[in-house]
Amino acid sequence: MSPDGRTERRTGRRVGNQPTRDTILAAARARFASQGYAGTTIRAVAADAGVDPALVAHYFGSKAQLFATSVSLPVAPDALIAAIVDRPLDAVGEAILRTILSITGEPGSRQAWLGMIRSAAADGHGAAVLREFFAEVVLGPIAARLENEGVADAPLRMTLVGSQIVGLAFARHVMAIEPLASATDDELVAAVAPTLQRYLTGDVALRSNR
Amino acid sequence: MSPDGRTERRTGRRVGNQPTRDTILAAARARFASQGYAGTTIRAVAADAGVDPALVAHYFGSKAQLFATSVSLPVAPDALIAAIVDRPLDAVGEAILRTILSITGEPGSRQAWLGMIRSAAADGHGAAVLREFFAEVVLGPIAARLENEGVADAPLRMTLVGSQIVGLAFARHVMAIEPLASATDDELVAAVAPTLQRYLTGDVALRSNR
Repeated sequence: MSPDGRTERRTGRRVGNQPTRDTILAAARARFASQGYAGTTIRAVAADAGVDPALVAHYFGSKAQLFATSVSLPVAPDALIAAIVDRPLDAVGEAILRTILSITGEPGSRQAWLGMIRSAAADGHGAAVLREFFAEVVLGPIAARLENEGVADAPLRMTLVGSQIVGLAFARHVMAIEPLASATDDELVAAVAPTLQRYLTGDVALRSNR
Repeated sequence: MSPDGRTERRTGRRVGNQPTRDTILAAARARFASQGYAGTTIRAVAADAGVDPALVAHYFGSKAQLFATSVSLPVAPDALIAAIVDRPLDAVGEAILRTILSITGEPGSRQAWLGMIRSAAADGHGAAVLREFFAEVVLGPIAARLENEGVADAPLRMTLVGSQIVGLAFARHVMAIEPLASATDDELVAAVAPTLQRYLTGDVALRSNR
C-alpha cells in the first residue's frame, strides 16, 4: 500500500492510532536532522515510516506543521506567520515581536524554540535545519509580502529581523542576562518593535539605495 | 614560594617559560568553566597553577585578558572596550558594531567568539561564562559611561545592545543565513548601527519613561 513498496515495515496497527503517528514523527525527526528542513519532503518521511504520504498530511498537515510537531512546538508556525502577513505593513514589526514573545512566554514552546537554537549552535545539521526553517517558513512569507508592496531588499531586511529575533531569545533565555531577561512584554515591544519595523520598511541604506 | 604553599605542584621550569604559561591557561580554563567569569579570580587561578598571582598578572594582565587568551581571542577585549567608551556618545553605537565586525572578520577571533556562543548554548556553565563576561567586560563599562552622561536605564539599554550583537553573530556565523551572512561591513553598519545607537541613547520608552 505504500508508494515505494516498503511494506515490510508496515507491521502492527498503523492507521489512525498513536504508534503510526509516533513512527511518522520519528521518521520526520531523523530526516530533518540528516537532510535539513529544505531537504526533507513529506513523501520521504512517509516512505521512511512505511505509510502513504496522504496519511502524513492527514496527521500533520503541512511540512511546517510536521516540523513544529517534531520539535514539540505546540502551535503551527505557518498559521502564526499567515496572521502576521495579513497585518497592515506598518504593524508587521510589532506583530512579529508579539508573536515571538507569546511563543517564548509559554514554557513548552520556549523549550522547543530554544532546542532549535541549541541544536543550531551544536552542529552544522542543526544550523541548516534552523536556517532553512527560518528562511522558508518564518522570513520567506513576510519577505514576499514586502516585495508585493514594492519594498526593496526584502531578503536582507528579513534576515536583519531574524538576527534581532534570535538574539533577543538567545540573550533572554540562553544567556539569561538581566535586566533584559525579566523585562515585560510591553517594555520589549516599546524597545524592540521599532527596530524590527525599521528593518522591514525603514531607511536601512542597503544595496538598492546606493 | 607560592602564597598558599602548594609547592608540590611547582615542578620543572616554571618561570618565564611556555610550560608555566600553559599551566596557568589550563587552570584558567578549568576555573572559568566551573566557576563562571565572575566567580573566577586571578588569585584562584594562580593557586590552582601553583604560581604567584603576580606571575599570572605578569603574563596575562587583567582577568579579562586572561579570559580572552583562554578562549584564544587574539585581542584583549577590555582594551577594545576602553577605546569605544572614549568615543563621542552619539558615535558609540557605530564604534561597538565596527569593533564586533573587526573581531568577527578575523578568522581566529571569530572562532573564539563563536566558541563562547556555542558553549553558552550547550550548558549552564557556558551560559554563565558568556553572560558574566558580557556584563562585566563588554556592557558594564559602556553602561557606566551612559550613566555618567545621565542616560536612564543604562543596564537595560546595554543588554538590548547585547541582544542585537549576539543575534547578528549567531545569524551570520552560526546559522549562516543569506544574504545577511555575506553583507559587507558598510551595509551592516548602515543597517544595524542606528539600532545600537537608539538602544544606547534613543527613545526606547523604558521603565523610567512611564
